[in-house]
Formats: sequence, C-alpha cells, structure tokens
Amino acid sequence: MHYASFVSPEGTPSWGIVEDAKVYDLGPGGLDLAPTLSDAVREGIFGTVSRDQFAAAPAVDEADVRFLPPVTKPEKIICIGVNYRSHQEETGKVEQKAPTVFTRFADTQMGHLAPALMPASTTQFDYEGEMALVISHDAWQVPKEEAFDYVAGYGAYNDFSVRDWQRNASQWIPGKNFPGTGAFGPYLVPASDIEDLDSMVLQTRVNGEVRQQAALGDLYFSIPELIEYVTGFTKLSAGDVIVTGTPGGVGLFMEPQGLLSEGDVVEVEITGLGVLRNTVQRSE
Amino acid sequence: MHYASFVSPEGTPSWGIVEDAKVYDLGPGGLDLAPTLSDAVREGIFGTVSRDQFAAAPAVDEADVRFLPPVTKPEKIICIGVNYRSHQEETGKVEQKAPTVFTRFADTQMGHLAPALMPASTTQFDYEGEMALVISHDAWQVPKEEAFDYVAGYGAYNDFSVRDWQRNASQWIPGKNFPGTGAFGPYLVPASDIEDLDSMVLQTRVNGEVRQQAALGDLYFSIPELIEYVTGFTKLSAGDVIVTGTPGGVGLFMEPQGLLSEGDVVEVEITGLGVLRNTVQRSE
Repeated sequence: MHYASFVSPEGTPSWGIVEDAKVYDLGPGGLDLAPTLSDAVREGIFGTVSRDQFAAAPAVDEADVRFLPPVTKPEKIICIGVNYRSHQEETGKVEQKAPTVFTRFADTQMGHLAPALMPASTTQFDYEGEMALVISHDAWQVPKEEAFDYVAGYGAYNDFSVRDWQRNASQWIPGKNFPGTGAFGPYLVPASDIEDLDSMVLQTRVNGEVRQQAALGDLYFSIPELIEYVTGFTKLSAGDVIVTGTPGGVGLFMEPQGLLSEGDVVEVEITGLGVLRNTVQRSE
Repeated sequence: MHYASFVSPEGTPSWGIVEDAKVYDLGPGGLDLAPTLSDAVREGIFGTVSRDQFAAAPAVDEADVRFLPPVTKPEKIICIGVNYRSHQEETGKVEQKAPTVFTRFADTQMGHLAPALMPASTTQFDYEGEMALVISHDAWQVPKEEAFDYVAGYGAYNDFSVRDWQRNASQWIPGKNFPGTGAFGPYLVPASDIEDLDSMVLQTRVNGEVRQQAALGDLYFSIPELIEYVTGFTKLSAGDVIVTGTPGGVGLFMEPQGLLSEGDVVEVEITGLGVLRNTVQRSE
C-alpha cells in the first residue's frame, strides 16, 4: 500500500493511504490512528492498516492535497554516496572499502510536487535519484543478518545537489543541505509489501529523458550492509531515514553536462514505489 | 559570567550560573527563569542575569552537580575542519578556498567530566580541542559584517574523533558521530563578556602534557566568515552550535603518534571559558 503524509484541503497536516487517486485520511482530520506517519511507524500501526479499515476513512482527491515528505521531521537523515558501480566509475571513486556517509538536516526536505529550490548562489544544480528506507525501531550495532527487521518501508528520494558548494572543500555537507533540496515521496511502502527488492528498477528522468537507470540489486553496499555499518557508529530510531545512493548518470558527469535549469521537471520512479516529481525553481 | 547546564543533586536537569565553585540554579528547581539554557538563549534571558538576581537563587556546590553540554540538544551542530594553519600543515590540506564543514548529531554530546567514550571498534581515538559558539537567533544569509550580532556566547569543545572510521571513506561523518564523543562546556560565556576574542588562547592537554596551543586569532576562516558561509546554505536558530576547528597537534599526526588510551585525562582550556575535562573510557 501507498502511505503518504500530506496537508489536507483544509490545511491540516495528516497522513493516510493513497489508492486509485484517492487519499484516505488516517491522521488528525480523519481516523486519527496516530498524529503523524512517523508516529504510526513508531507505534507499529504503519503497514498494518487493512483495506476495510482505510475504506472507512474520509477521502479526498489526490490532486487536492499537498504532499509532504512521508517522514516530515526525521531526527537523522543518513545519506550514502557513490554506492552504485556506474556512479563510482563516472566519479573515479572505484575503491570503496566502506560506505561513504554524509547527512542532511530535516529542514532540507520537501514532498512530491513541491519545487526543487535551486539556490541563487549556484551554477551547478543537479539531481540524484535514490531509494530511501525508513527505520522501524531503535537500532544500534545491528548485524547485517538481522538488518531487514529494522526496515519499516521504502520510498523514492531525490538528493538534489548543489555541486559547486559540495565541491568547495573535501566535505560535501554544504552542497547537500540547502532548503528545498531533499525530495522524498510521494509514498512510503511497507517493507512487507515488497516481493523482490533487488529486481526493482530506479529511473530518473529530466523533462521525460531517462538520465539514470539501475536495479536496486546493483547497490554496491547492500541494504543490510548499510544498516550494519551505520548502526555501528550512531543509534537510529523509528522514522530515521537512510538514503541509499545514486546510480551513474548525474548531470555533472554527462558529456556535455546535463545540469538543471529553472523549469526542468525531474522524476524519480522506482518499481512499486511511485513517481516522485519536482520542478526546479530558482530560490531567493 | 559562566552559565552552565547541569543535573542537580536531586536529579533535575536545570541551568544556572557558576561562581566561586557554587552553582546558582536559575532553571526548573531554582528561579525557573526558563526551562533550559537553550530556551534562555532563545528568550533573550541568557547574558542578562545580574549578580543580585542570581545571588538570590538556590545554590549548591559545583562538585555536587553533573554537568551537561550548555546546549543539551541543539538542532544543528556545525563543525569546521582544518581551520588553523598549523593543522592544515600537519594534514597536508593547505589549500582552503572555503571552510570545510561537517556535522554532529546532538546525541554525540556530553558535558564536562563525563567520560569520553572510546568505541570498542577503534584503534585510533583522538582529541581535537576547539572553541564553540552558540547562535542567538534565526540566522540566514548573514553578511560577515553583521555576524557577531548572531552570537550568543562561547565555550570549549572537544571534538573527539574516531580516526579509522573517519578515514574509511572520503566523508568524515562516521568518525565524528559516535555517542559520547562531543564534549562541550563546562560553561557558555556571553559574547558581551568577551573583551578580545583574538587574543584568547586555546590549549589542549593530555594527562597534563600540552598537545595543542593557539590563539583564537589564528583561525584561518574567522568567526564572521564562518557564520556568513554556513548561513549561506542552512538556516541556523537559537541554540545551534558552530564548532570552529582545531589547531595543529592532534594525536594522529604526532611522531610518534599520540592517540588516546583508556584512562587518559584530556583537558581543553580557553582563556576566560574555563577548563573542559574528560577521561577516556572504553565503551561497549
């Protein structure tokens, strides 16, 4: 099922389930099963709502809500760099003895259909289509054999990157932390709904042109390896997000370069997880 | 004056002012001027408490409280790397066209006298004495000429670093985000109490031996330049922390290496800001 966070037509932040272009309100203005989708994850409600249950909820047209990131305010957003062989090759970073880890602040995030904000101070705004997972409960020093027990669900992510600020110095944080650059959604899909993660295909399109395409099975460090490594140094909890890395085909390394301009429509589609669409808008 | 956050002998988290080895309780169990020191910063109370006012507060011996980081849960902790010429030289990173920025999660922090937790998974645990500043109010795209208007106060910081995890990949986040590695305190001193920041001296000692020493005026990117750069990509708010970088003399680059062992006592002293002391303890 497609869980989502959204602002209702009345302006109330809520969450629910999207089916057949209808949004069933399971949060504050609707069934109020939990205040937020993040709370629903923490309380074990996420992924357990039956069709009979949500069909009884008040529903509105999908076109009438404003999508929020499925987890609106994660305490920790852990991003993984250069984690597909195809991106390792274009960046020249083919030796990876451990995952490359950086972070985003929660205030960089926005939802499906929100503008991707291209800062006034950049000439190098770029996309990175990725798969994101959400943690289900407290996770510390998790062995990879048990890692999937800690995954609540999956969604699409666009780790929009301000390349000049990313490459001003050795550490990437500035280029990854402008407001309106971490697109997440539209949906969070329960892990229990996923049949074969490895065969799912991630595709990034700019104005309809395919720029990135890879199967999730091509991840260099697998999801269990990432969870083991990350929980080896920091404690994760319900609602925390791991963004698992981007395949080759980013705009910076295309020849000629394929960086973004105002008005470009960028889509990240992952099999079963929906299409995340954002239009580039120059910010102040 | 020396503001601090602490847990009272009764077990109540609070904050107050330390003078002559007495802690005057201005928070929850005392005058209750604000719930936390961070709230006192946000509400403009920090730095305005007079001697007459705090002398009326209930007081206990400094030895009977447990120090917390002055800001117990900052939303953002921004750390600056290689920001003294002497550390640039020992690391070989002498070309710095922009500040090197990385982040810590709030749950890495601990206070004065708390153990510095050396992870079981490292053989390279190191100190980095630094000066930290706390932001007073919302700050976005602040020009350097106005930057000091956004500084509430200053304190000592020890950015304990897990060098092997830091250097596993190009991005340093794992080595800077283990629990019990971000030591902050004992005090936060109001900016208005500081007469000449540049002449203040930072000194790091291990078991009494001086390892690092520099004047704050030796910062490669100055405090106003750091605030301008950081607020150029992320919005800061009251209680956020910028940790301004470490001078040369870290253990990793000493010959022979001077990395830390269990039981080592590490002190960071900065003129007027007190002595931050932590003892290394092997964690599980």
